[in-house]
Amino acid sequence: MISKEVLLNCCQRIQPFIHNTPILSSKSIDQKIGASIFFKCENFQRAGSYKIRGATNAILQLSQEQKYNGVVTHSSGNFAQALSLAAQSIGIPAHIVMPSSAPHIKKEGVLSYGGKIYECAPTVEARQKKANEIAAKTGATFIHPSNETEVIIGQGTAAYELLQVHPDLDIVFCPIGGGGLIAGTALYANYFSNTCMVIGGEPFEADDAYRSLKSGSIESNTTVNTIADGLKTTLGDKNFPIIKKHVSKIVRVTEGEIIDAMRLVWERMKIIIEPSSAVALAALIRDAQENKDMYKNRKVGVIISGGNVDLDNLPF
Amino acid sequence: MISKEVLLNCCQRIQPFIHNTPILSSKSIDQKIGASIFFKCENFQRAGSYKIRGATNAILQLSQEQKYNGVVTHSSGNFAQALSLAAQSIGIPAHIVMPSSAPHIKKEGVLSYGGKIYECAPTVEARQKKANEIAAKTGATFIHPSNETEVIIGQGTAAYELLQVHPDLDIVFCPIGGGGLIAGTALYANYFSNTCMVIGGEPFEADDAYRSLKSGSIESNTTVNTIADGLKTTLGDKNFPIIKKHVSKIVRVTEGEIIDAMRLVWERMKIIIEPSSAVALAALIRDAQENKDMYKNRKVGVIISGGNVDLDNLPF
Repeated sequence: MISKEVLLNCCQRIQPFIHNTPILSSKSIDQKIGASIFFKCENFQRAGSYKIRGATNAILQLSQEQKYNGVVTHSSGNFAQALSLAAQSIGIPAHIVMPSSAPHIKKEGVLSYGGKIYECAPTVEARQKKANEIAAKTGATFIHPSNETEVIIGQGTAAYELLQVHPDLDIVFCPIGGGGLIAGTALYANYFSNTCMVIGGEPFEADDAYRSLKSGSIESNTTVNTIADGLKTTLGDKNFPIIKKHVSKIVRVTEGEIIDAMRLVWERMKIIIEPSSAVALAALIRDAQENKDMYKNRKVGVIISGGNVDLDNLPF
Repeated sequence: MISKEVLLNCCQRIQPFIHNTPILSSKSIDQKIGASIFFKCENFQRAGSYKIRGATNAILQLSQEQKYNGVVTHSSGNFAQALSLAAQSIGIPAHIVMPSSAPHIKKEGVLSYGGKIYECAPTVEARQKKANEIAAKTGATFIHPSNETEVIIGQGTAAYELLQVHPDLDIVFCPIGGGGLIAGTALYANYFSNTCMVIGGEPFEADDAYRSLKSGSIESNTTVNTIADGLKTTLGDKNFPIIKKHVSKIVRVTEGEIIDAMRLVWERMKIIIEPSSAVALAALIRDAQENKDMYKNRKVGVIISGGNVDLDNLPF
């Protein structure tokens, strides 16, 4: 059982290592949706996404000996950069397993934060095998990008900061990939608000969480043909029970809706958000269209998860 | 002679109608340049650029009768939207002359702010002729986008806000198009700082201001083949004397440097800036490379003039 005190301790522990990111609003988006929207901008977070929160919390919980041996993870995306930067900030080694197919720019990011890259074949099995090998060889502690209690608790601190500023939020929207962010968000919403529901946004093209909530057990993705590259992973046994208990529903969105939401934010708010973040807004737009009355005069939070976009591969 | 009091009155006058925009920094850009850079983010301004400052100041100085008859301008860019929104906020009509070739999205912007569009042929003569006709017919007051004292003073308020937060700035960089922004910036830097130099950034492809400063009289552009669409216009008789007196120098940059600077801000700062804004940063990067010692431990401001980018026509 994760207590309120555990959550508060986490917030305090990681606070020197992370940004309390700004919360932005847009009159024209408010008008479009018919509610007051508060965007928690983790695209301005260190290493460009919320992932540094969980990575930092996990590392700070290690023993001195564990710290000495460093950490290892597998990730082709934001967690790779976040763990590298968190490890660098705390002064320990980070071993990062990345598929050989990972974009050049992501590898550069990891290297610029002092992470050591190990390439593997682009399959889940190859990733895990390689990470296990490195852990055995170096003594590094394996830290999973999303299915790890300390990581989950860390990711939720973005929602905590949002609720500190807006304690009367009615709903908060999150994207769902591996499930770490939304599980963490749901924990803080549960303990620090009497009213705030948590709703997940997920692409139709990677809707494992939607189907898992329906069936009651973890389902895998049947397709992952989505622009939201951070949301292709599946739920884990640590975060799924939390999601099942505390997440109100999951709204699925089309690729077109994701691109439209991303464009809306770029054009109106003049900030760069990645496609995975746009999924949360796209879900809000869809849900507000289907349930207009539910949103009237409501205060809605949206976790903008990150801003790491490959400018050479834009959808517009 | 424009006095300090005139400038302070302007700041106070327009303050209820504009945003005091955020000032952002980037560790990695500071490291790249070897100085502390403070970006005054007018891309987050109302209507997406600093232009609303001057437009608002000009409108608020009109008599009741003039207000009743409204305002007219010619602009294919940010001033068209800014004057429309400023007029709408104050409740008066805005007549906007736009070349028939103006992008659809700019026309939509003007219409969304309640401006009335009049199309003309895409030449300077046709614009001015059409604007004169409308002024004669409607009694509307013509407001020039950059060569108008009240507009110049209004545009400079962005620099005033920056100097309020960082009174010890050593240099401030601005883009130069029609000359309104940099002339206004230079006036405030002159009155509100003992140390702050003003340097302009200009594309090689539209370097009328650079050549005007060299020759001592207003030169026209020989080419305007630049991605910085806001900087194709030339200086005017109201702003040129101010620029001549108070601007230290103008640094010209290539199209490649503009695109690189724009990309740097998008990738590192996760904010959308338009190519014309990137010109100021590109000029800073070039000048800091050529004069390393001048920038060591210095505090440098950059006016990010706007964020109105056509996402269908990106250079990357």
